[in-house]
Amino acid sequence: MKAARLHQYGKPLQVDEINIPKAKGESVLVRVGGAGVCHSDLHFMKGEWQKILDVKLPLTVGHETAGHVEEMGELVQGFSKGDPVAIFGGWGCGICQNCKDGQEQLCNSPRWPGLSRYDGGYSEYILVPSYRFLVKAQGLNPKDIAPLTDAGLTPYRAVKKVRNLLNPDSFVLITGIGGLGSYAIQYFKLLSPASVITIVRNKKKANLAKEMGADHIINTSEDDVTRQINEITNSNGVDVALDIVCAKDTLSTSVNSLKKRGTLILVGLMGRTLEMPIMQSVMNEYNVSGSLWGNYNELNEVISLARLGKIKSSNEFFSLKDVGKAMEKLESGNIAGRAVLIP
Amino acid sequence: MKAARLHQYGKPLQVDEINIPKAKGESVLVRVGGAGVCHSDLHFMKGEWQKILDVKLPLTVGHETAGHVEEMGELVQGFSKGDPVAIFGGWGCGICQNCKDGQEQLCNSPRWPGLSRYDGGYSEYILVPSYRFLVKAQGLNPKDIAPLTDAGLTPYRAVKKVRNLLNPDSFVLITGIGGLGSYAIQYFKLLSPASVITIVRNKKKANLAKEMGADHIINTSEDDVTRQINEITNSNGVDVALDIVCAKDTLSTSVNSLKKRGTLILVGLMGRTLEMPIMQSVMNEYNVSGSLWGNYNELNEVISLARLGKIKSSNEFFSLKDVGKAMEKLESGNIAGRAVLIP
Amino acid sequence: MKAARLHQYGKPLQVDEINIPKAKGESVLVRVGGAGVCHSDLHFMKGEWQKILDVKLPLTVGHETAGHVEEMGELVQGFSKGDPVAIFGGWGCGICQNCKDGQEQLCNSPRWPGLSRYDGGYSEYILVPSYRFLVKAQGLNPKDIAPLTDAGLTPYRAVKKVRNLLNPDSFVLITGIGGLGSYAIQYFKLLSPASVITIVRNKKKANLAKEMGADHIINTSEDDVTRQINEITNSNGVDVALDIVCAKDTLSTSVNSLKKRGTLILVGLMGRTLEMPIMQSVMNEYNVSGSLWGNYNELNEVISLARLGKIKSSNEFFSLKDVGKAMEKLESGNIAGRAVLIP
Amino acid sequence: MKAARLHQYGKPLQVDEINIPKAKGESVLVRVGGAGVCHSDLHFMKGEWQKILDVKLPLTVGHETAGHVEEMGELVQGFSKGDPVAIFGGWGCGICQNCKDGQEQLCNSPRWPGLSRYDGGYSEYILVPSYRFLVKAQGLNPKDIAPLTDAGLTPYRAVKKVRNLLNPDSFVLITGIGGLGSYAIQYFKLLSPASVITIVRNKKKANLAKEMGADHIINTSEDDVTRQINEITNSNGVDVALDIVCAKDTLSTSVNSLKKRGTLILVGLMGRTLEMPIMQSVMNEYNVSGSLWGNYNELNEVISLARLGKIKSSNEFFSLKDVGKAMEKLESGNIAGRAVLIP
Repeated sequence: MKAARLHQYGKPLQVDEINIPKAKGESVLVRVGGAGVCHSDLHFMKGEWQKILDVKLPLTVGHETAGHVEEMGELVQGFSKGDPVAIFGGWGCGICQNCKDGQEQLCNSPRWPGLSRYDGGYSEYILVPSYRFLVKAQGLNPKDIAPLTDAGLTPYRAVKKVRNLLNPDSFVLITGIGGLGSYAIQYFKLLSPASVITIVRNKKKANLAKEMGADHIINTSEDDVTRQINEITNSNGVDVALDIVCAKDTLSTSVNSLKKRGTLILVGLMGRTLEMPIMQSVMNEYNVSGSLWGNYNELNEVISLARLGKIKSSNEFFSLKDVGKAMEKLESGNIAGRAVLIP
Repeated sequence: MKAARLHQYGKPLQVDEINIPKAKGESVLVRVGGAGVCHSDLHFMKGEWQKILDVKLPLTVGHETAGHVEEMGELVQGFSKGDPVAIFGGWGCGICQNCKDGQEQLCNSPRWPGLSRYDGGYSEYILVPSYRFLVKAQGLNPKDIAPLTDAGLTPYRAVKKVRNLLNPDSFVLITGIGGLGSYAIQYFKLLSPASVITIVRNKKKANLAKEMGADHIINTSEDDVTRQINEITNSNGVDVALDIVCAKDTLSTSVNSLKKRGTLILVGLMGRTLEMPIMQSVMNEYNVSGSLWGNYNELNEVISLARLGKIKSSNEFFSLKDVGKAMEKLESGNIAGRAVLIP
Repeated sequence: MKAARLHQYGKPLQVDEINIPKAKGESVLVRVGGAGVCHSDLHFMKGEWQKILDVKLPLTVGHETAGHVEEMGELVQGFSKGDPVAIFGGWGCGICQNCKDGQEQLCNSPRWPGLSRYDGGYSEYILVPSYRFLVKAQGLNPKDIAPLTDAGLTPYRAVKKVRNLLNPDSFVLITGIGGLGSYAIQYFKLLSPASVITIVRNKKKANLAKEMGADHIINTSEDDVTRQINEITNSNGVDVALDIVCAKDTLSTSVNSLKKRGTLILVGLMGRTLEMPIMQSVMNEYNVSGSLWGNYNELNEVISLARLGKIKSSNEFFSLKDVGKAMEKLESGNIAGRAVLIP
Repeated sequence: MKAARLHQYGKPLQVDEINIPKAKGESVLVRVGGAGVCHSDLHFMKGEWQKILDVKLPLTVGHETAGHVEEMGELVQGFSKGDPVAIFGGWGCGICQNCKDGQEQLCNSPRWPGLSRYDGGYSEYILVPSYRFLVKAQGLNPKDIAPLTDAGLTPYRAVKKVRNLLNPDSFVLITGIGGLGSYAIQYFKLLSPASVITIVRNKKKANLAKEMGADHIINTSEDDVTRQINEITNSNGVDVALDIVCAKDTLSTSVNSLKKRGTLILVGLMGRTLEMPIMQSVMNEYNVSGSLWGNYNELNEVISLARLGKIKSSNEFFSLKDVGKAMEKLESGNIAGRAVLIP
């Protein structure tokens, strides 16, 4: 089968012809329908994930995958050949405290496909170690939903962490309207009565934010961000800031927009360090939380939203052999929404 | 009556003879039994609270007060002359969202005694604007419990914020064992099954920590802090770090000690800025929360602990006229526990 | 002024001419714009509230009131003559544990207008003991929003108690689509992504439920309730049942519809006793919670929803002198939505 | 190997000689060190669990087991032959919503050993379907900790559900001081600052309750229960009632003891129906929750408590061949604490 693999950090992926793996025990072979291309893949290719995960090269990249069940090990239950499935990528050990708490993506010894020692989804087939990592996706097309397993899942978890804080007179600030942000807007509107403010960099992003349901859009190329936020929130600040970028300037805006007892959720990985002013943080009882990917049940809920027709996606498709082109376009900031590889 | 007042920032307090205020409406005149001396008072005297609270000089300092009811306005209910009372100091407007949520100390227009326009407790009498700020303290001596209204209350709130995260195999790290820290140790032992690690600077503090019930004591003058924490926690890190100092180095230790999904509570005000590494914060889903003072019900609970004989205090008493001496001793770091003024 | 008062249990209200009360201290005189007529008023008139509240007759009935500020005591802050206001009716002592926790409607010594010793809103004017019980309602007409202070508030609190349990694949069951139920449907749609099933008794109620946004409507006069719920939920049951009636049969349906770990919220007062099967409750970890009225902040949020134009009401207006007619029509089940008295 | 098996409902267990099962895949063969005898086993033998679980006879009874690892399938990770282990008994499918939420004991298709189709622990060996159901118990003797897997685990979960509601001035009421209750007292003292009231039937139970740390003991054979509770709680009632019996009379006492906003946790299975008065439940916002067994992490925490020497047990040992004698003694109410079978 064909698989786009990384042989050396800093080098482009290479489309190799390798053997199709064999399903046994609890594992399932999935014929890939689509594989999302994520900024994390670019970071991975530069070697930045080595410190965090136990990586072994060469490796087939891709952690955002959906497809159809092709072959099942003898212990697999509840699935049939041909079933459309979304692949939960936060593979864990299944027995540490976090796994046992239903937070497998926070496993103490993670085994993420395409980012550690397990081959990912930039390939014709992917071997999933257990059917317990598959989410049924009847009635949905794998190529369309592949991005839901990360770009769609990550903001969903973030929104669930804070939705109980949001009331009809609450405001949410979202910085970063790309693959993740466009879902975040939709989730806030679906799960809470809050008004959503988004900060965008240009007209095109502004249009996307509007289409996804943002109530207020601040365009950094035209508006005075601070003044606008004050005007919209009547100088009270926002209840929740969701920073999908986490660069120095977006973080500064996020922190300074918070209301008393406000919450900042960190999802992005662009910057190095968040600087929180201590006096302000204590006096106002600010809260800051990192939010990582999502768990299995959360993916199930995202897939439900898709099945119910409640969320829109904006995907751009590439054939597997054009993986280089897709990555280049992503790196140069020219993908609107998510790039998806089709083997 | 005598009252220690600030006339000018940067100058020492002056013991003035002023008129005894008159109780009317809902207000209550309290004969001060004891008034705790807090680091915040030192900051206040330097002018550092002007940016945050609406201050008017001259002002009688002191926000940590207990005493006996002396005189009551005509609308006061449920109190009698002579009742021993602890004074809740987080006076608020009573109608903003935070006040109405029972978090008056987080009021959007705070009216804290001794820190804004309302005279505080370094005085023979203090006028409390409403009986709704008084906590009954039958059977307790005001001079002993005055520090409970802040030094005892602040860590109590902090502990309550996290106690639900603490299990029998959890670890808590407390940095800063002075007035607040010695209560914090006791509260963690009373409200959770976690093991408590404390970081102290010297032998004397180590003894205090031990007396208060700490399970593990790390003395920075003798031990390698990081190695010790790793050894104690089996390299897993701590579930909760409570930073009562919030200086650059204690914060760095606190952040780097956190376990996956760990929580850092900020209570101290010594440093300027908390620096959180973004990658680590997201990947490990760290949580950071500021915690401010405590609310009325929390003060009630602290007073209950005192009444039940479940907490120990370590107070050093000064007469009101020696307020200068008390402040000097506090500033030079020579108060073990809390200094209390007796008018 | 005119006021509809109860002089004796079991007798109809009498429209008396009495003196206009005088505002002083913190109290505010409100010129009544509208006063909602509630089932609780009927119960009250039969003497059923005597066991619970400290009642004194004669009393002006009415706990669901909005109007304009007419006169203010000398301690009132933040309001001006003529301000439109919704009156929070859960008047409490302000110092017990529940009041201090922001749950004044659960005060240990309640002072509800029109239900205890305090005159209510079936009147030209009502004296509110403190401006802290007033919610600003700029841009809204008191007669339209009076029902929001109870019929609109009670289901709002109930929905907030459970919204965090509701996911995109969740189901909610609402029994009882009258004044409260029509708001409940809207709140679930605004605050959660769950699908809403409502049980109604006739075509007219079915139409109302549909208009308010119910996803599934079961008409007891036509459908087999159990079969329908099974069909809709794929035999899994509902995550949350909100029983606004609490009669023997609705409770039985509610309990038997629950999913594993499901929650039943009791709001209605029609029946005597809820019967929970123990084995089922333990094995499935059912939860049951009573929900009472709402607190001040919740009323503020409901008023925000009205101001934002996000909720619809269905009110029928009567002049104050026709109070008898309004009560008769309510008792005979012929009010669609809420009856509102206009003085 | 020898195994005590049920061949027919209503008949006594029969000690059979059967083949030792074989570990393969993820499964682990455990040499039984001790197997607790539970009231549920008596119910099971009468056929009462048929409606709930998918049972197949003959079956080796026993769901409360600890032992040593004897043999491991080829996919087992992290365990070695000879390791002492506690067996988590709430075996689930691993993929339903509850399993994936870390609540395997609430699995939608439960596979509990000794209560369904899977052989239990009244045997020399037990085959555990996955190493993910084993909790390490280094330094502990399996025969001593077997009861912790149910008698010790069930009240632990119940206490964790409510501990966040408990403050220094709170009261807890425990009805039923046998195997579970004696742990419940200890957990409340370890995890909360509340005062514990226990209701016992005789002097012997009173002594046990005292030894375990109860603050107040009410002996139904001597005291007026209602009066005593009122006296102890100053007529406010208890914050939490934990009913470990759930008979008609204990439930009635539990419900009527609740404070406003109080919570009743159901753990026992003796009665048929809980009767909640609706008016009282709504007006006081009572909460009722069933609590079932415990999850894997909770078992881990209980084992931690044992390892730390923080809990006491009261076990009575029988050899496997005397299983009949043990069950008789249990049924006649003459086991103090827990009966444990030693193969």
